[in-house]
Amino acid sequence: MKISILTIGDEILIGQVVDTNSAWIGSQVNSVGGQVIKILSGSDNEDTLLQDLNFLASISDLVLITGGLGPTKDDRTKLALATFFEMPLAFSEASYNSLQRKFAKRNIPLSPRHRDQCYLPAKATLLENKVGTAPGMLFEKNNTLFVSMPGVPFEMKYIMEHWVLPMIEKKMGSNHVTHETLTVVGLGESQIADMVQPVEDTLPTGISLAYLPNFGVVRLRLSTNSSKNEDKLLPYLEKLEAILKDAVLGRGAETLEEKLAKASINKNVTIGTAESCTGGYIAHKITKNAGASQYFSGSVVSYSNAVKQEALGVREETLLEHGAVSEACVIEMARGARIALGVDFAVSVSGIAGPEGGTPEKPVGTIWLAVASKDKIETTKLQLGKNRWKNIQYTANVALYKLFQAITKW
Amino acid sequence: MKISILTIGDEILIGQVVDTNSAWIGSQVNSVGGQVIKILSGSDNEDTLLQDLNFLASISDLVLITGGLGPTKDDRTKLALATFFEMPLAFSEASYNSLQRKFAKRNIPLSPRHRDQCYLPAKATLLENKVGTAPGMLFEKNNTLFVSMPGVPFEMKYIMEHWVLPMIEKKMGSNHVTHETLTVVGLGESQIADMVQPVEDTLPTGISLAYLPNFGVVRLRLSTNSSKNEDKLLPYLEKLEAILKDAVLGRGAETLEEKLAKASINKNVTIGTAESCTGGYIAHKITKNAGASQYFSGSVVSYSNAVKQEALGVREETLLEHGAVSEACVIEMARGARIALGVDFAVSVSGIAGPEGGTPEKPVGTIWLAVASKDKIETTKLQLGKNRWKNIQYTANVALYKLFQAITKW
Repeated sequence: MKISILTIGDEILIGQVVDTNSAWIGSQVNSVGGQVIKILSGSDNEDTLLQDLNFLASISDLVLITGGLGPTKDDRTKLALATFFEMPLAFSEASYNSLQRKFAKRNIPLSPRHRDQCYLPAKATLLENKVGTAPGMLFEKNNTLFVSMPGVPFEMKYIMEHWVLPMIEKKMGSNHVTHETLTVVGLGESQIADMVQPVEDTLPTGISLAYLPNFGVVRLRLSTNSSKNEDKLLPYLEKLEAILKDAVLGRGAETLEEKLAKASINKNVTIGTAESCTGGYIAHKITKNAGASQYFSGSVVSYSNAVKQEALGVREETLLEHGAVSEACVIEMARGARIALGVDFAVSVSGIAGPEGGTPEKPVGTIWLAVASKDKIETTKLQLGKNRWKNIQYTANVALYKLFQAITKW
Repeated sequence: MKISILTIGDEILIGQVVDTNSAWIGSQVNSVGGQVIKILSGSDNEDTLLQDLNFLASISDLVLITGGLGPTKDDRTKLALATFFEMPLAFSEASYNSLQRKFAKRNIPLSPRHRDQCYLPAKATLLENKVGTAPGMLFEKNNTLFVSMPGVPFEMKYIMEHWVLPMIEKKMGSNHVTHETLTVVGLGESQIADMVQPVEDTLPTGISLAYLPNFGVVRLRLSTNSSKNEDKLLPYLEKLEAILKDAVLGRGAETLEEKLAKASINKNVTIGTAESCTGGYIAHKITKNAGASQYFSGSVVSYSNAVKQEALGVREETLLEHGAVSEACVIEMARGARIALGVDFAVSVSGIAGPEGGTPEKPVGTIWLAVASKDKIETTKLQLGKNRWKNIQYTANVALYKLFQAITKW
């Protein structure tokens, strides 16, 4: 089933928002065996919307449209849909009644704006949206299906999960794309490519290998377009694992944070962080996972030297002799964090994230990390580039990996 | 100048990566007066690439292509470009020599993989890439220009900044799209729409207003497609400001974090955070800005009650009587953070981010915030929804805004 995504709105085109909706849809469609073949973002303008709908209709079995359904005036989607499907806009009593019920519960009066919102393409099949005011709409034209959804992420997700994904799963049957993924940490894309070339050279037609590098983490993805090759992926996956050994974090789409969560819960340990240059980003990555309070106690973001001394007990002599970006300092930070936060494992980082602040001895991108447990401390030095945001993300990934390794080996 | 973006790679289609490159390109093109009319993501496959190039060529003056240029085998872009522009691949001595020089500096030997990478479409104009191994390439066909760039963000950015943006700026002259933006905090999209309707109803043809909501922050964007309407935007912007008053953070694309940075530097104050449910995300947002060490000292992420007591001095009685999610607790957290971090202003948050953990009295989405200065403390209660990630982002934005307001009023 060839599926396209059309996102509507100038905010994406002028870069005021990043299109995270499409990434989410892509991964969900993929997980039920569907295949997203195009993602197209266009303007909220009737002429160009018709152009986009025509292009995607010509190559897709299903077009998923997000955005342009809402209470404000910059939404031209409904008009374009009415024209494309050759039906008028009509007032939907069902939609208005549902709105009335929702607002009555919250004691909010309906405004004329909400009444306007209930004018919908006349023959659309409405898909109930329990978490917002605009329903999803299903259309069919020349054997292609179209679903239009609001652009608000959790409303779109509601309609995808309750209506669209079950429909795709049902239509797919056994004929679907399959992937196997391996996550590798700490090796570069070229380095990995050289190591796995013997396997890559023997891949049969119909099986492909892709590299997805992401700040110190590289995902290797083996894919096949046909369900009859599905069983063939596993032997190649095993060959890749045998070559890449310790650098392999694991199979599947599980993230570093999820692996760390499982390892911490399995070993029944608590963790914490002491962060200078990453500024709280490691703690944020850990706590973005629901349930983090089971194993994560907290963090000291010690951006200034005073906080390093007061909150973590880093000694003044250490800072004077070695500086804040040093092995000696991260060792004291990690040990201090274990005590200040009362945790079993603490990871600390201190470095020069950039773009300014480097010296000849410690250029921008010099980062020190330490992981401390009750009876052990291990340090790592990274020498990264000059891009601040890249350095923060790369360092956070390495820190999570080192913490994960220390816990699994414990 | 009509500009399209084509991003290549299955990783975007299956949702393994979010397309942040296009958002960045969109905002940069916009800032030099260009207009991105489409963003298209397609597969790394010769046939579909040709389909995409043909579609975009038919509607664009310039097509910016990212991705599919790299050292690994899953890159089919060069072959598709050679076919589309009807030229063979040829070995580029210039590109190989440049690679040799780069690797010699770092004492790394060149691999055969790097040699392969130097086979490029024969008549492409090469655009030097000083931060990576694959150069950009410029092509022309039927009066449409095409630039192909690597997908690695900082390499793409280098080529955009050094080659593409200056080219667009030169071609644009005076005929360009103009925007004026107003950032509003703490009001919903519908609420704002009702308030500004009198202004919206009087907008002349050629001027449009768009709403860009983003977790408690709504950007209002006034746009015109013609430089002759440019002067007309300002009076409408002033009318919007007069209506929305205190809810207006400011004009332009400046973010909350940038406003906070300027205010802190102007008033010469230091800031810190005490975070429970946001788990370090507020500190991360502040420190993502280069130069944050001028005003940001640090943060205590007190996820567990023990850390709230030990590191911030929250009293046991407060936790027993009111719970961690309470006005009394955030007041003690903010006061404790001022002392523990030695800062002038501290913001604290404690809440139930979800999706689990609510009670009838304190449902998921109940969040308390406090901002403490030397002689003042102000608290805010939020009642948000059940989406964890949405709650974290919304709370962080409100916290930054409250901190900003306290500092500017000081």
